[in-house]
Amino acid sequence: MAPSNCSASAISARLESVRERAPLVQCLTNWVTGNLVANALLAVGATPAMTDVPTEAGRFARVASAVLMNVGTPNAEQRTAMLEIDTAGPAMPPWVLDPVAVGTLPVRTELAHKLAARKPTVVRGNASEVVALAGDGGRGVDSLIDAEGALGSAQALARRTGGVVAVSGAVDVITDGETVVRVAGGHPFLARITGGGCALGGVIAAFLAEDPDPFAATVAASAVYAVSAEIAAERASGPGSFAVAFVDALASVSAAEIAERARAA
Amino acid sequence: MAPSNCSASAISARLESVRERAPLVQCLTNWVTGNLVANALLAVGATPAMTDVPTEAGRFARVASAVLMNVGTPNAEQRTAMLEIDTAGPAMPPWVLDPVAVGTLPVRTELAHKLAARKPTVVRGNASEVVALAGDGGRGVDSLIDAEGALGSAQALARRTGGVVAVSGAVDVITDGETVVRVAGGHPFLARITGGGCALGGVIAAFLAEDPDPFAATVAASAVYAVSAEIAAERASGPGSFAVAFVDALASVSAAEIAERARAA
Amino acid sequence: MAPSNCSASAISARLESVRERAPLVQCLTNWVTGNLVANALLAVGATPAMTDVPTEAGRFARVASAVLMNVGTPNAEQRTAMLEIDTAGPAMPPWVLDPVAVGTLPVRTELAHKLAARKPTVVRGNASEVVALAGDGGRGVDSLIDAEGALGSAQALARRTGGVVAVSGAVDVITDGETVVRVAGGHPFLARITGGGCALGGVIAAFLAEDPDPFAATVAASAVYAVSAEIAAERASGPGSFAVAFVDALASVSAAEIAERARAA
Repeated sequence: MAPSNCSASAISARLESVRERAPLVQCLTNWVTGNLVANALLAVGATPAMTDVPTEAGRFARVASAVLMNVGTPNAEQRTAMLEIDTAGPAMPPWVLDPVAVGTLPVRTELAHKLAARKPTVVRGNASEVVALAGDGGRGVDSLIDAEGALGSAQALARRTGGVVAVSGAVDVITDGETVVRVAGGHPFLARITGGGCALGGVIAAFLAEDPDPFAATVAASAVYAVSAEIAAERASGPGSFAVAFVDALASVSAAEIAERARAA
Repeated sequence: MAPSNCSASAISARLESVRERAPLVQCLTNWVTGNLVANALLAVGATPAMTDVPTEAGRFARVASAVLMNVGTPNAEQRTAMLEIDTAGPAMPPWVLDPVAVGTLPVRTELAHKLAARKPTVVRGNASEVVALAGDGGRGVDSLIDAEGALGSAQALARRTGGVVAVSGAVDVITDGETVVRVAGGHPFLARITGGGCALGGVIAAFLAEDPDPFAATVAASAVYAVSAEIAAERASGPGSFAVAFVDALASVSAAEIAERARAA
Repeated sequence: MAPSNCSASAISARLESVRERAPLVQCLTNWVTGNLVANALLAVGATPAMTDVPTEAGRFARVASAVLMNVGTPNAEQRTAMLEIDTAGPAMPPWVLDPVAVGTLPVRTELAHKLAARKPTVVRGNASEVVALAGDGGRGVDSLIDAEGALGSAQALARRTGGVVAVSGAVDVITDGETVVRVAGGHPFLARITGGGCALGGVIAAFLAEDPDPFAATVAASAVYAVSAEIAAERASGPGSFAVAFVDALASVSAAEIAERARAA
């Protein structure tokens, strides 16, 4: 897998494809970081639509190219909207579950377990969230272990969902239950702005759209994200200017920059 | 109309008036872009108040100088809040309806039609939204036709509401059902950041406040917006830095810059 | 009080402590400015968690290091979430009440009075909000009087809550009902971006965490905030770039800059 699908040229080709097709990505996400999620999606070339009210959400998912469900602020209407989406239906596009702070908080934890049982194409979370969702205990928003430490849980979870699990950290760990690819790079600033993880969930959804290989799409999205963060950090003088430069970098990152900087293996 | 009311000096005079009076603009708007709407309003000199909970919304509208209703994320409480506003009452200030993604999505479409029947001072949307609200079919968030292509629908809608309809696009088309003014300029970056349209709805509301001529106020707001976007794009290296520079430009745009760049005719 | 606890070195020591401990700050806050609140908290070294849905909110408050309750967009679920927090319980950490626009708007005003009766560690608001919460009348979001003009109300309110009251203005006025400290500096740009006040509420909460002296913690947070705003304004060309530079400054402000610029007395 890693040799061909994780090459810089494969990553760039996938980015080019997102930019050309401008996939429609439906986001049911938290109100804290939804603005960054939408701007990151626009920057990468996708078309975000934050369609998250009941009645509309289920209908919209049937025409979207991909769906993101992020349980960061799971109010009652959004829970209803997420659950009304017919994830098993023939019109369901690939979708990403972001189990924000799952572990001991009861509302989101129950919701995320229900959604995980519906076999998301990709689960993206930090180490403790993935550990919790896998049923191995969890500690909330903050990752107290690194992504590598969650590998066993990620593999078990991927085998259960039949999908991909992407664990975010200093080095991202991505697995389909068997193959494991690690994406290095990125920048600690990503953890110093709110939504640094949520927006990756959105970008992964954009890359999944119409891609026959969810694993390679997730690797490509993560690598583009990491390279863009690296470029942005060089232009930033703090987390505020990093967030701005990061959106710029997502919009401008080139095949040459990916060739030079991407580290997926 | 165009010769006198759309002149650069008339536009600048209206901007000056907003800056001096700091009108109180009540916004019932979507949670994705509300932050930019508020910051654009503050930048242009207005005082935003996002008062959108039931019981408060109707009461606040009676003291606001203008009201924005944007149906982008129409949850149940916000729908109730919008509908409790006594738009026909003697204390109702001018108001803007932004029919985000109206067309096939049932909740917002029903809501927007109800609100349109209450005769908003201005409807601001992209081409497909205006076409949909006029009852001529619609295709959602993305405008598949340009603003000019929606002119017939815009005129019909304006005659029905007795107000102004502003269709956003590469060239904005503004009509009261008879007169048509086009505002050129702006920048494609406006469509690459989330809220580029929503914030224009807010800025139009600010210009409507205490202005006896809603049509000229809408033209002026659109021209100030386009000029500011043009200035911002020259300072930006991508959509992230554009959004920042755009708020700066809204706050600093001068009569000289408007004289040099505004293109309303 | 002022001589020792308000010295620049005492302020810097408190900032250092926040940066080292990364306190977990639970925010139940408005959806308009929640993104800035979270980013300001991250910048200052804290760990924000916007846990505001019923059932989760009460539980989370027992493990948080501090809690912010901001009534800016008080929808029904958020009201329930705020009121389910057992503020009198043994596990309750220090908490901040931000009575946004309290005065005549009925929903938030009733909520804020209920919360004020529960004795928040700190109330942070502008002059008219503090006057309204003290029961002396109020005029909404905009402060029509300066902070000094609200001193009597602030002292009365502080005596009633047994806590600290911080009135924001060109010069912040902070009192525990007896002692009064004024924090000068800051920049008018803070009032030209949405959330300039809300984010201070969050930062105060971060400083309260594990600090045995809420008054000195509030003074320190306000001084760090003012110094950071001053630094940011020097790098900004408008409110948009100010907001970005402000987050950068909160993350980088040094003991030397605090020694040079802080004005608390």
